[in-house]
Amino acid sequence: MSDGPPSEQPGPLPIERADVDAAARRLAGVAHRTPVLRSTHLDELAGAEVHIKAECFQRTGSFKFRGAYNALASLDEAERRRGVVTVSSGNHAAAVALAARLFGVPATVVMPSDAPGNKRAATEGYGARVVTYDRYREDREARGRQVAAELGAVLIAPYDQAEVMAGQGTLALELFEEVPELDVLVVCVGRGGLMAGCATVARSVAEARGRAVEVVGVEPEASDDHRRSLAAGRRVGLDAVPRSIADGQLATIPGALTFAVNQRRVDRFVTVADDEIVATMRTLFERVKVVAEPSGASALAAVLAGTVARPGSRIGVTLSGGNIDVERFRSLTGG
Amino acid sequence: MSDGPPSEQPGPLPIERADVDAAARRLAGVAHRTPVLRSTHLDELAGAEVHIKAECFQRTGSFKFRGAYNALASLDEAERRRGVVTVSSGNHAAAVALAARLFGVPATVVMPSDAPGNKRAATEGYGARVVTYDRYREDREARGRQVAAELGAVLIAPYDQAEVMAGQGTLALELFEEVPELDVLVVCVGRGGLMAGCATVARSVAEARGRAVEVVGVEPEASDDHRRSLAAGRRVGLDAVPRSIADGQLATIPGALTFAVNQRRVDRFVTVADDEIVATMRTLFERVKVVAEPSGASALAAVLAGTVARPGSRIGVTLSGGNIDVERFRSLTGG
Repeated sequence: MSDGPPSEQPGPLPIERADVDAAARRLAGVAHRTPVLRSTHLDELAGAEVHIKAECFQRTGSFKFRGAYNALASLDEAERRRGVVTVSSGNHAAAVALAARLFGVPATVVMPSDAPGNKRAATEGYGARVVTYDRYREDREARGRQVAAELGAVLIAPYDQAEVMAGQGTLALELFEEVPELDVLVVCVGRGGLMAGCATVARSVAEARGRAVEVVGVEPEASDDHRRSLAAGRRVGLDAVPRSIADGQLATIPGALTFAVNQRRVDRFVTVADDEIVATMRTLFERVKVVAEPSGASALAAVLAGTVARPGSRIGVTLSGGNIDVERFRSLTGG
Repeated sequence: MSDGPPSEQPGPLPIERADVDAAARRLAGVAHRTPVLRSTHLDELAGAEVHIKAECFQRTGSFKFRGAYNALASLDEAERRRGVVTVSSGNHAAAVALAARLFGVPATVVMPSDAPGNKRAATEGYGARVVTYDRYREDREARGRQVAAELGAVLIAPYDQAEVMAGQGTLALELFEEVPELDVLVVCVGRGGLMAGCATVARSVAEARGRAVEVVGVEPEASDDHRRSLAAGRRVGLDAVPRSIADGQLATIPGALTFAVNQRRVDRFVTVADDEIVATMRTLFERVKVVAEPSGASALAAVLAGTVARPGSRIGVTLSGGNIDVERFRSLTGG
């Protein structure tokens, strides 16, 4: 295990509630206001009220559209004309591609060569150019900066950027608007961008109503860098690139900006095993009738594993995305 | 091919728009108001605006809850105390079971012995008793009447009953409230109960706005008894029990009451092949992120096959149910 930079100091954080509110205004009428799903069966399994924010129905099939569009919308005209570049394993790629198309600017996406085929196809389908790198041998951030420099384009970070985190936070804003009395908010965590936005909203809601919200992050077992980092009080990196079916959550170290936020605003991180994720994808299919990709099912998997629930509590859960093709679903559920 | 009874005469029909409005009042706050889903991808495939009424999110996982609950709600206290009996291949069974539970009355369901296991489990899960019969050797209606007589219970017909048809029609009521300018309404057809309710609403909407709605019914190729009956001008039965993956649409002859309505209010019936249904289930999974059982996907399958769409038109489509387990989905999509 290698260490990251020293712990962030207390002080101003990269985003506050006002940034999320501003993002919500930019996203109004552009992003979908996704439904909050309920299921008697899930409530019985969890022993609690489960409210699922179904971002599988978001444009491009995941929450990533929120942050990508907010980042594009925050650029000025001259910046946008230069075009945008980003680095992503998939969902952020498609999100930037669509956001760029909506603004009429060219987008280039640096993707790992083993990214799921459906995610690459979606990204190209939205008109972006795809450049690949080797997830296990090359540094993704360096590759992104290199491509951006070559093209003279603006880099849209997949998580470590204030506008991206603030955009993702609009998910929690909508969820609390619909269910103001949530006791617990459970969020899937990769590099921590969604969590940073959502935790910021949860803290602000808790303060306004004078009653706490427990904020819980969920990581795959093999990729528990946030859990370790929170325990250590500083960003801690994993020695090896984790392998998990949750391809949207394969982080080796928390983002610098996301961790600055999450260290102060998240109560705890828990982990789920791949087989718990698959079981949850099945439950979502059969009982809720929705499609979740592995990363999309991980937060609910933690709830159903009993890691999170307090009996009778009201739990908000992210279902972060639904981008999985039938072949991969068949393969994962075939064991 | 055997013939049914002679054609119904013009005259009063079993249900009118006012019956559907009354059902909507009974269902308010009990049935879910299911979402109407859109997909840019589907619009491109269809060359039209496709609006999907997603009854996979209805209570018990299909539209059948609407009719079953309306039928139970229309009984008086003395009738309900006797308990209810119904005959169903699955979704109507679970719907009656839940409706009966909500009213606190006992329910017995006569199911074919080869009904999908998940549907039988759901029915029993809602507290109903299940009695089986042989779909290929016994007469389902006779078996239902026999069980009802033995128990002294009230028979809730799965389709040929005014309250059931009117309840199903609330689906179209909600769809037209959300998309008033629909040009075409495409409805899956088994025995025709959903269609009778929906066609009644469509005709009333068309009259009120002074512009036609084309009403199209969709049957599996092997079970085209409505198409044949409409062409013949009277109920025409099939010689053999049809075999199709669309287990909710395996009708041999239209219902007497449903056909009386549909003969006057439906423009045409079209058919879809099983492989078109499977392809549509895949598309719904990958692009819309929702789960459809085969019967649930058949109406959209007809739209995507080009059988229904007029370029640029606004098409309302039923996604009638999502009750399929992962194993069956894997098996159907494995070909």
